[in-house]
Amino acid sequence: MSIRIGILGYGNLGRGVECAVKQNPDMELAAVFTRRNPEDVKILTESASVCSISEVESWKDKIDVLILCGGSATDLPEQTPVYAKLFNVVDSFDTHARIPEHFANVDASAKEGGKVGIISVGWDPGMFSLTRMYANAILPQGNDYTFWGKGVSQGHSDAIRRVEGVKDAKQYTVPVEAALKAVRNGENPELTTRQKHTRECYVVLEECADAKKVEEEIKNMPNYFADYDTTVHFISEEELKKNHSGIPHGGFVLRSGKTGWNEEHNHLIEYSLKLDSNPEFTASVIVAYARAAYRLASEGAKGCKTVFDIAPAYLSAKSGEELRAHML
Amino acid sequence: MSIRIGILGYGNLGRGVECAVKQNPDMELAAVFTRRNPEDVKILTESASVCSISEVESWKDKIDVLILCGGSATDLPEQTPVYAKLFNVVDSFDTHARIPEHFANVDASAKEGGKVGIISVGWDPGMFSLTRMYANAILPQGNDYTFWGKGVSQGHSDAIRRVEGVKDAKQYTVPVEAALKAVRNGENPELTTRQKHTRECYVVLEECADAKKVEEEIKNMPNYFADYDTTVHFISEEELKKNHSGIPHGGFVLRSGKTGWNEEHNHLIEYSLKLDSNPEFTASVIVAYARAAYRLASEGAKGCKTVFDIAPAYLSAKSGEELRAHML
Repeated sequence: MSIRIGILGYGNLGRGVECAVKQNPDMELAAVFTRRNPEDVKILTESASVCSISEVESWKDKIDVLILCGGSATDLPEQTPVYAKLFNVVDSFDTHARIPEHFANVDASAKEGGKVGIISVGWDPGMFSLTRMYANAILPQGNDYTFWGKGVSQGHSDAIRRVEGVKDAKQYTVPVEAALKAVRNGENPELTTRQKHTRECYVVLEECADAKKVEEEIKNMPNYFADYDTTVHFISEEELKKNHSGIPHGGFVLRSGKTGWNEEHNHLIEYSLKLDSNPEFTASVIVAYARAAYRLASEGAKGCKTVFDIAPAYLSAKSGEELRAHML
Repeated sequence: MSIRIGILGYGNLGRGVECAVKQNPDMELAAVFTRRNPEDVKILTESASVCSISEVESWKDKIDVLILCGGSATDLPEQTPVYAKLFNVVDSFDTHARIPEHFANVDASAKEGGKVGIISVGWDPGMFSLTRMYANAILPQGNDYTFWGKGVSQGHSDAIRRVEGVKDAKQYTVPVEAALKAVRNGENPELTTRQKHTRECYVVLEECADAKKVEEEIKNMPNYFADYDTTVHFISEEELKKNHSGIPHGGFVLRSGKTGWNEEHNHLIEYSLKLDSNPEFTASVIVAYARAAYRLASEGAKGCKTVFDIAPAYLSAKSGEELRAHML
């Protein structure tokens, strides 16, 4: 029997989950739940239903894992604890500073409902967190580095779009090659914000906007741009659509550590991702953890888990025997 | 109370374990067991004992985890099942083809003794296996690539040393840059053995040896060199000692995969290691898994495990709260 998946929220991430479920023969998409009028939402999977979010409770026995595809700012802090009482759930909550609080809320709900909730799944938090944790456990003496990009930051793109005179914009976060190189050389540099990443902005102006003023406003925006070397390119709407419509991302996690009786030997662990589609990759990680949620729940587990708490084999459709014979 | 570690076998790996234990404040080295005369074995840890392997059973209640540092060819297939009846054990068994058989033997013994045995720990098998498994679970449609090096292959160095006229030798396995580049570009190449790695040999000749003949014999050696582009450098004994006495290694695991409704998006996951000391890094991985063995056993677990079966948090000295707050 397949693992029956529900998707709550059908934006980029929800569509990514739908695509990922299609790639996993042990899963099937049962239903998509939306806040919009279900008749206005067209999904790709013919066999799945589209329902109003108000109906979700009636699917309690027809869904094995509900995947929450809302945003971390306002949706998930509310939704994950609510739905963890009714369903095994997976979310991609990515506000790092609020993870402990979110964990506590989901843990209480999931235990109350006798369900499993897996939070903060994706690539950062997610695969990058795993890499940092394994690398720190292996090399207790060392330094951690995380670089993001080259990729689109939705938050920074949105910030530019709020500047007066800007019609549309896309912002790329770009790791500084020289900084990466210094880390790879084992130099253990201390890097400022400015030394780690640059920000490249592609901006479409409103008619009659003052380019000089827009550029200054972007470059001096506190938190978002003031601490970075920022480049602003003014381009046409057509060019933005043609060359900047994708949502690529990626990045690097490195740990540079030492071993030996006198710490005389250097080691470098590096993990990197180069992603054509940030939401589809995030969704693919989430779907693997949905399998884990299903299996853990089948074994009687309850409460909130993160990627740190789940043995890798739970993610794979392959058996222990197959994994040992072919992947170890 | 510290986790009390025993080391069985005091070669490069055993010494690496000793150094790694020193870096982990929640552990202490209790004893090293050797087949040699204990009086002839000098270890670095003043507080630890050096004992004959024949005494190991009397340490049953004084050691929490026994780390088996013998070789995979003959030592570990015998030793791990024997000692898994008496101790929680960790080994680095790396004969990939024989892992299922070794797992079965260790599992039976560990269950009989009520102990935990973790096998095939290190970087390949080990961290590379984990990367392959996670990456396959996340991207079910894709191709796997593993490259080793640049690093010293002990097996190939030994093979050269058996050639008549060779006094000493060191062999480096080197990944082919063009092949790595093709994988990173998402070209999904099918690569032959020759296209993936080259072999570089540094050879010290015996007096009066025939260099031409030695070179031909190395290059045509079946299994070891015949399928590779091999370069042979003849150097002096002094140069070998000066420039080639380390045991560096490393490598790359990549998975190139596709997502999207029509698999229209490409993704690349890459994990790499650059290690000054192969045995010390392997030992560092083993020691983190010794912590896991201790904790799993404390919870009542029994039987054989691999890296696939162990939740990442078990490896870390940090609590779940600390990990979620600082590493997720």
